[in-house]
Amino acid sequence: MICQHVCIKYIIPLSLSSQPLNSLKSDEAGPKQGPTFQDGQRRVDYVLTYHIQKPQSFRRKTSHFGDYRILRSLRRSLSMMRGRDTPPPKEDPEVAAHKHRLDYHEDDKRFRQTEFEDNLREMGLELEKDEGVSYDVVERINLFIRKATMLFYPLLSCQILYDEWASYSVFYKYQPIGLIRKYFGEKIGLYFAWLGVYTQMLIPAAIVGAIVFLYGCATVDNDIPSMEICDPRNNITMCPLCDRACSYWKLKTACGTARASHLFDNPATVFFSIFMALWAAMFMEHWKRRQMRLNYIWDLTGFEEEEVSLCPYNTACLLLYVCSYFSLDYVLITLFQEKKVKLTCTDRAPAYMTGLFTMLIMVGVTFAVVFGVILYRISIKAALHMSSNPTARTNIRATVKGTAAVINLVIIIIMDEVYGALARWLTLLEVPKTDKSFEERLIIKTFVLKFANAFSPIVYLAFFRGRLNSLLLYLCAHAGCLMELCIQLCITMLGKQLIQNNLFEIGIPKIKKLIRRRKSDMDSQQQEDYNMTLQRHEKDHFLGPFVGLSPEYMEMIIQFGMVTLFVASFPLAPLFALLNNIIEIRLDAKKFVTEVRRPIAARAKDIGIWYNLLRGLSKVAVIVNAFVISFTSDFIPRLVYQYMYSPDGSMHGFVNHTLSYFNVSDFQPGTAPLQPMHLGYEVQICRYKDYRETPWSNTPYDLSKEFWAILACRLAFVVVFQNVVMLMSDFVDWLIPDIPKDISLQIHKEKILMVELFMKEEEGKKLLRDSHSNQSPLQPRSRPASHTPSNC
Amino acid sequence: MICQHVCIKYIIPLSLSSQPLNSLKSDEAGPKQGPTFQDGQRRVDYVLTYHIQKPQSFRRKTSHFGDYRILRSLRRSLSMMRGRDTPPPKEDPEVAAHKHRLDYHEDDKRFRQTEFEDNLREMGLELEKDEGVSYDVVERINLFIRKATMLFYPLLSCQILYDEWASYSVFYKYQPIGLIRKYFGEKIGLYFAWLGVYTQMLIPAAIVGAIVFLYGCATVDNDIPSMEICDPRNNITMCPLCDRACSYWKLKTACGTARASHLFDNPATVFFSIFMALWAAMFMEHWKRRQMRLNYIWDLTGFEEEEVSLCPYNTACLLLYVCSYFSLDYVLITLFQEKKVKLTCTDRAPAYMTGLFTMLIMVGVTFAVVFGVILYRISIKAALHMSSNPTARTNIRATVKGTAAVINLVIIIIMDEVYGALARWLTLLEVPKTDKSFEERLIIKTFVLKFANAFSPIVYLAFFRGRLNSLLLYLCAHAGCLMELCIQLCITMLGKQLIQNNLFEIGIPKIKKLIRRRKSDMDSQQQEDYNMTLQRHEKDHFLGPFVGLSPEYMEMIIQFGMVTLFVASFPLAPLFALLNNIIEIRLDAKKFVTEVRRPIAARAKDIGIWYNLLRGLSKVAVIVNAFVISFTSDFIPRLVYQYMYSPDGSMHGFVNHTLSYFNVSDFQPGTAPLQPMHLGYEVQICRYKDYRETPWSNTPYDLSKEFWAILACRLAFVVVFQNVVMLMSDFVDWLIPDIPKDISLQIHKEKILMVELFMKEEEGKKLLRDSHSNQSPLQPRSRPASHTPSNC
Repeated sequence: MICQHVCIKYIIPLSLSSQPLNSLKSDEAGPKQGPTFQDGQRRVDYVLTYHIQKPQSFRRKTSHFGDYRILRSLRRSLSMMRGRDTPPPKEDPEVAAHKHRLDYHEDDKRFRQTEFEDNLREMGLELEKDEGVSYDVVERINLFIRKATMLFYPLLSCQILYDEWASYSVFYKYQPIGLIRKYFGEKIGLYFAWLGVYTQMLIPAAIVGAIVFLYGCATVDNDIPSMEICDPRNNITMCPLCDRACSYWKLKTACGTARASHLFDNPATVFFSIFMALWAAMFMEHWKRRQMRLNYIWDLTGFEEEEVSLCPYNTACLLLYVCSYFSLDYVLITLFQEKKVKLTCTDRAPAYMTGLFTMLIMVGVTFAVVFGVILYRISIKAALHMSSNPTARTNIRATVKGTAAVINLVIIIIMDEVYGALARWLTLLEVPKTDKSFEERLIIKTFVLKFANAFSPIVYLAFFRGRLNSLLLYLCAHAGCLMELCIQLCITMLGKQLIQNNLFEIGIPKIKKLIRRRKSDMDSQQQEDYNMTLQRHEKDHFLGPFVGLSPEYMEMIIQFGMVTLFVASFPLAPLFALLNNIIEIRLDAKKFVTEVRRPIAARAKDIGIWYNLLRGLSKVAVIVNAFVISFTSDFIPRLVYQYMYSPDGSMHGFVNHTLSYFNVSDFQPGTAPLQPMHLGYEVQICRYKDYRETPWSNTPYDLSKEFWAILACRLAFVVVFQNVVMLMSDFVDWLIPDIPKDISLQIHKEKILMVELFMKEEEGKKLLRDSHSNQSPLQPRSRPASHTPSNC
Repeated sequence: MICQHVCIKYIIPLSLSSQPLNSLKSDEAGPKQGPTFQDGQRRVDYVLTYHIQKPQSFRRKTSHFGDYRILRSLRRSLSMMRGRDTPPPKEDPEVAAHKHRLDYHEDDKRFRQTEFEDNLREMGLELEKDEGVSYDVVERINLFIRKATMLFYPLLSCQILYDEWASYSVFYKYQPIGLIRKYFGEKIGLYFAWLGVYTQMLIPAAIVGAIVFLYGCATVDNDIPSMEICDPRNNITMCPLCDRACSYWKLKTACGTARASHLFDNPATVFFSIFMALWAAMFMEHWKRRQMRLNYIWDLTGFEEEEVSLCPYNTACLLLYVCSYFSLDYVLITLFQEKKVKLTCTDRAPAYMTGLFTMLIMVGVTFAVVFGVILYRISIKAALHMSSNPTARTNIRATVKGTAAVINLVIIIIMDEVYGALARWLTLLEVPKTDKSFEERLIIKTFVLKFANAFSPIVYLAFFRGRLNSLLLYLCAHAGCLMELCIQLCITMLGKQLIQNNLFEIGIPKIKKLIRRRKSDMDSQQQEDYNMTLQRHEKDHFLGPFVGLSPEYMEMIIQFGMVTLFVASFPLAPLFALLNNIIEIRLDAKKFVTEVRRPIAARAKDIGIWYNLLRGLSKVAVIVNAFVISFTSDFIPRLVYQYMYSPDGSMHGFVNHTLSYFNVSDFQPGTAPLQPMHLGYEVQICRYKDYRETPWSNTPYDLSKEFWAILACRLAFVVVFQNVVMLMSDFVDWLIPDIPKDISLQIHKEKILMVELFMKEEEGKKLLRDSHSNQSPLQPRSRPASHTPSNC
């Protein structure tokens, strides 16, 4: 019952083997197992189910096609097993005629499709054979031995996958990639291989991240700036954080935040972001090598991806479908008025424009949402400030941050679904020519939208918060915005990963199933009875459809973004990602094995566009981290203070240095706090976190020389960091060869062997030809050899 | 007489053609033309000349080898021409036996070597044929027609190359790349193709550069800062530019320099550096596509470069040679004490260390030379200042700059030769395993040394001049250092290209020839008589040896560096490079055709490591240009002044803003000028170009707020420029596909055709086998078909 849809598809009786099939544990292995052909002997090994949409003629064609495919694959595997010297089975004349009608190209395509089936069969599934063909005794014995050893393997392969892969209890084991590939095809095999490499590579990153975090914990008591903030002797009165509603406050109330900030904002994070940039480069290299190795093992080195046209007939049919569905007149006009089938650039331009503008608008919407959340924060903060409830007042900051982050998260999750549908629609509009191009365009669009969606609040927190607003309005807490960024990241990561991915991934199919069951108006007993009467392929059909790998990849790419982009502000991100991925692998495995219909095996040489996206992300990560370190954290101001302004070269006095003076008489009308006596005394001069001139200077409240000096240092750091890290990444890239040494040697050897073989064969052919020409020197060249009188 | 060594090598009589050979213009085409074999019929087509170093046995082996090669190539081309259906010529039993002794691998290698010769022959050179072989009448006619049309082609190919390629009069034409490749092999063909693409791509760059320069010329009269400098009403007294010797000076004396600076330092240069960064990306892409196309046309798509071991026996022999030559005991000890032949990392470490340290020292020497030149400049300037000659005094600046640049140039040229030898020696020390690795290591070392050598004075001028020295000492003239950078670049480029490359390349071989002739003690008549008696291959031997393509590539890479790296300071660089390259192509062509021995044809799929160096340079160029624009030019200070400090938003007052005040009473003892009354009045306050506090501020002569603001803006510009340009380059990279569409389609088609062919052949073989098995069903499989009784 567990991996129901899987086992049946490829069960074919072994006529030569005496092993009873019911010795297998799987309950599918009974004597009656799935449909057979009319003769009651040959089992059906592939059932194509679909909803009827076309007239009868189409359907018959398909079934004929299916028959033909089976025949072909049968013939192929037979000829493979018998070697080259035995004659091929007599061909059905009808099939042969059919074959000759088809041109070579289609033949080749079908050949590739069936090849996968053969791969499975190679694992031990034998086809029935024509008993009339005579074998050598030795060959028969060999065949029998091969069968005996491989007997249990294929029948159990789904069970093995279920036990050894799709189970949480084996989370510490490597995945059986070879088996996954044999079972699901190369494309899905590559996904799981990639996921495995990524998860494995996350281990060192998680460990180093945890160490950096622990270093922060250990040094929090020695951090002079937070000590100064917490010191009650430094009786610093701070200016209000918002207009009117907020009042003056004591710096020492920010003590907790300052100490917490130090956990993430210490010199170790600088080291950690450099480490993570190199880690990303290493990861890319490592994956390239792994992919190369898999390509070699899976015999894909010479494989070239075929461009499958999206529409079986031409692009026009799809276009018609799209246009009628969305009633897009302008495309229809283009198509029918000008009677074009091949779309030119001009025809495509409207779709591209629509796509571009919709994307821009959507990214705009994302930012609007972020600003909406900001407005919410400002208003809720003001409201809480004014409330009389003392508990509410003390927890203002935490409450505001928490609720805002949760709201952000909910919006992100909702918008994600919207954006997914939107990207699909936009891609359909563009009418891409091939399947691959469709997928790539869809992925790029989805990526841009989902990425903007997931990262806009984080980017806002990291770079714009406290900088866009006017003087004094809504600045970060003392210790930089890093702490808030960290909270946001933490909530987004946990929330997105746990709620959206895992809960949705497990929950929604379950709910759908439940609804289906409810709808069918049967109790569980009836249901079970009904299930018993169903054919295996009918049961399969009731499983959820396979929707492609894109959502799985997308999820992981967004996570990779979280891990690399803002790692400077949240060193625990790799650890969270690691924990998530360990579950994720098994969850995906379970889903693929038991929840969805078995996907049609597809070949792929690489992970395609995802690799480019990963590369792009790891490049962008360098710049983003440089900016986070220099602008969001206090790293640069501290260094500058220590080496340029500190009287004794220590950090003492840093907090005082970062705070500017404000004369309360300079409040603009209507912005002065409503409760000026909140602290119990009258305030004349308050402090705020910025580098500005004092009220008693010639140019009061202008940006001070310190501000410019620190800004220059921040930017210098960005330039140096970016170029050094990029150089180091390039060096790592250069240092690690793309193809593992042993594989490249092996490939070289095989090439030589192959040339040698060809040469030998050529020689053999020549000799054969010689003997022929000796035999019948007058025979014309163009006539095939088989037509010569062979019994003279 | 012109392309002497070339024509003779491949002249082979055409036995089937009735065309008289003396109808050709070339005077080599007389009846007696080079050596023949003993039979007096078969001509020698390849003569290997070398200095005798080995015993006789080795020599005989070689000649045997040569014979064999000719036989093979003969056989190959014969079989090619006759198609597959005619029987191969009877093999000489001795040769056949020899062939069977050689293993497959060597055979393959030789096959590749001879294939090149065949390529040439395909152009029309026919081999003599065994008259005994019977042809179809139709085939004979076809063959005759082919020969007749191709008759003149090969014999003239050197003449064609000389007329259509190695001549200055055809500079506007495309190069005959196909012919070059057929004649010199793929490696040299690729070099000229690359040079052609580079030169072609330089045309738009040169045009835009010229336009930018003209824009500078046109706007020089509207440039407010230089107008202010030249305005005699702005009576600004400047501080002396050196200690003691120099005196105060009027700002308006810098008028000429300021106006000249504007030619190169205007907003158009910013546009031009962005343009050039994109140009570099386009160039790389364009070359990739061209290379792909050539690969396809030249049938190299499947070609894999073979790693040729540097030493025919093992690395030890080379090591011994190196060690004994340079008496390096430690390597000898390693080799003999431990009796190792295969070198481990430990064995190689000393050589690597030596290499690394020598390189570092040499780069240090380069910088030392630059500082030596600076010292020269300072001392000569002081001397000239103190001289009483008024002409010398007025031309001080130009004299100093000019002589310094020339000295730099001379040093660069001398050091270049030293570094070339040094890099070779260091690479030999490392004992690389293969030929390719040797070449790559040598190239990298040479590149680093020569690059440091060529660019250190420029880098000094661009970034360190006026910044390393203490206050007031040796600052640039008012309008930034860009002008001096420009002069230096101009002199280096013209000097390096004209003197080093062209003059040396033409001159030195000529001088060598002259010396050789002098040595031989014969007058010209005698010489000519002697020449007449010489065999062609003997004459060839007197030509200079072919030293590889590295010097040619290196020259071009350094030029590419000049064109891209500092293009912001010298927009005419592409134009100079273009003019140089138009000559360079023909010069190289002449050299290859007439001056050096014909190189042994080598295959290559790409330009190898040079491509990586180009890529690296174009990446570095982005950063260097960002720094040149923001730090060397006045672009950013102007912008900042206009938008932050200008009272009316115009550039009026900019000059005054950039000048700080200095109180002459603050001169340190011994630094005050010796002639304080030089200007005719007593100076109290002088001005200098820097952003510093005034003498009457609280912190006199400290860096001012403006300094930090401008520094921050400069750095922000670097960050923005670098990332925007990199993004645009990546976009260009992504936009232009690496493989031209038509080529990729063609390759795809051919693949399908090939598979089809294989399938057909397999089928044919099967049918053949069937007929055989019908004929003799009991025949064992393992016996070759030729051994079966064929006449039953």
